[in-house]
Amino acid sequence: MKRGESEEPYRDWIKHSSIDRRTRVVLALDLDGKAPSDLLEFGEALLDHTDEHVCGVRFGRQTVLNLGLSFTRRLTRRVHAGDLPCIIDDKLSDIGSTNEAITTAYYRLGFDAIIVNPSSGWKGGLEPVYRLSRKGGQGVIVLAYMSHPGAKETFGQRVFNGASRKPTYQYEKYARKAVDWDSDGIVVGATRPNIIRKLKPIVKGKVPVYSPGIGTQGGDIASARKAGSDYFIIGRSITRAQEPANISAKFARASFS
Amino acid sequence: MKRGESEEPYRDWIKHSSIDRRTRVVLALDLDGKAPSDLLEFGEALLDHTDEHVCGVRFGRQTVLNLGLSFTRRLTRRVHAGDLPCIIDDKLSDIGSTNEAITTAYYRLGFDAIIVNPSSGWKGGLEPVYRLSRKGGQGVIVLAYMSHPGAKETFGQRVFNGASRKPTYQYEKYARKAVDWDSDGIVVGATRPNIIRKLKPIVKGKVPVYSPGIGTQGGDIASARKAGSDYFIIGRSITRAQEPANISAKFARASFS
Repeated sequence: MKRGESEEPYRDWIKHSSIDRRTRVVLALDLDGKAPSDLLEFGEALLDHTDEHVCGVRFGRQTVLNLGLSFTRRLTRRVHAGDLPCIIDDKLSDIGSTNEAITTAYYRLGFDAIIVNPSSGWKGGLEPVYRLSRKGGQGVIVLAYMSHPGAKETFGQRVFNGASRKPTYQYEKYARKAVDWDSDGIVVGATRPNIIRKLKPIVKGKVPVYSPGIGTQGGDIASARKAGSDYFIIGRSITRAQEPANISAKFARASFS
Repeated sequence: MKRGESEEPYRDWIKHSSIDRRTRVVLALDLDGKAPSDLLEFGEALLDHTDEHVCGVRFGRQTVLNLGLSFTRRLTRRVHAGDLPCIIDDKLSDIGSTNEAITTAYYRLGFDAIIVNPSSGWKGGLEPVYRLSRKGGQGVIVLAYMSHPGAKETFGQRVFNGASRKPTYQYEKYARKAVDWDSDGIVVGATRPNIIRKLKPIVKGKVPVYSPGIGTQGGDIASARKAGSDYFIIGRSITRAQEPANISAKFARASFS
């Protein structure tokens, strides 16, 4: 479970990597549609072009399912060779023993942080993921509001908070849980700057905000940054670009101004 | 994407397989803690002992992450060789394009149905999973209430249902969604017979109920069956048994009485 060359816990590692490279961009690698060896080659070439402009790399789960285990391991090693931490965007939401087994398998593949869905709760749910990650220095990042329209159905619903008779929003409840659990990040879509703005006071100084949904999905760095996003998870706008080096450099400058 | 030898859609396949073999047991394969080749051997041997007593096999995600792609494919082929459908317990909850990519990758590995977490909603969320599955004859099974204590935090919370001013339970909202989406099953932990009983009238005649949590987690077949469960997802009580053939036969009889 060696985490690249870094001795730092994940949360410090990405922070320092962000400051040193003057970028808040996390590259999203969703590799698909080709033979595993072609996907590996594509991923490696993309990292060659972009890794100086990003502070971390996030793999979608399809990347692991399409690459297979040994190529996934090769690609996380390539990310570490560039001194960057590697996040698996799992949206994990199972019972405790399964969560533990899945997290262990990912950390063995070289991941330094995992994105979880808070819907399975703490007891007998996510607790072992935090225990395991604290021990190994990995990070746990919690979904608070996703970037697509359907997120409104659940992340946007009003719920009763514990014994209180007053309803609150699901995303607020999730953000408070993320703070209580001492998480290493929350995820709020850049498509929802108003929600980032509402959640920032809850997590401020404790838990950084990661925002996907820039570009293809319609989110915008400037407004999300102004609302309080700390990191921007950007995929298709970079991976499908003609010149990924230029476009990632441009996103880096926009994110760090 | 060939689904074993069956020409039937998943939902009919598991139903007929259940009636023909007189069992409502779905074997849960959570393979872990050994080298991939040893896990494959263990899984194959377990199927040799149990497959006449079960109506389907469900793989945990850690099984795929620990076996790797080619061994996973070999094991789904082995399940199909016994004329059984194969479910991936993914608890999928991502944005649409990612859900589609993940589901496609699983169906390519030989799975016939996928368990999803309704928390990402329909639009830009789970919609492509249903579209893909309808086309290929695969099944989509929706979490309504999980079997562990932390499930109470979210599946058990009270929420406002749409424009209504009257609160409802999250699990009721999820079960109604599952019906609206024309799903092939809902999952409710066998540890919650009262909730199975409450949800049965909502899904009855439309969507079968799958219940994990038998044995190790404290759930009981007789009370869950009485409450309305149609299928029982059983793992550790069989996979860790000294005599998996006997114990799975015993569960089969209890499930079909």
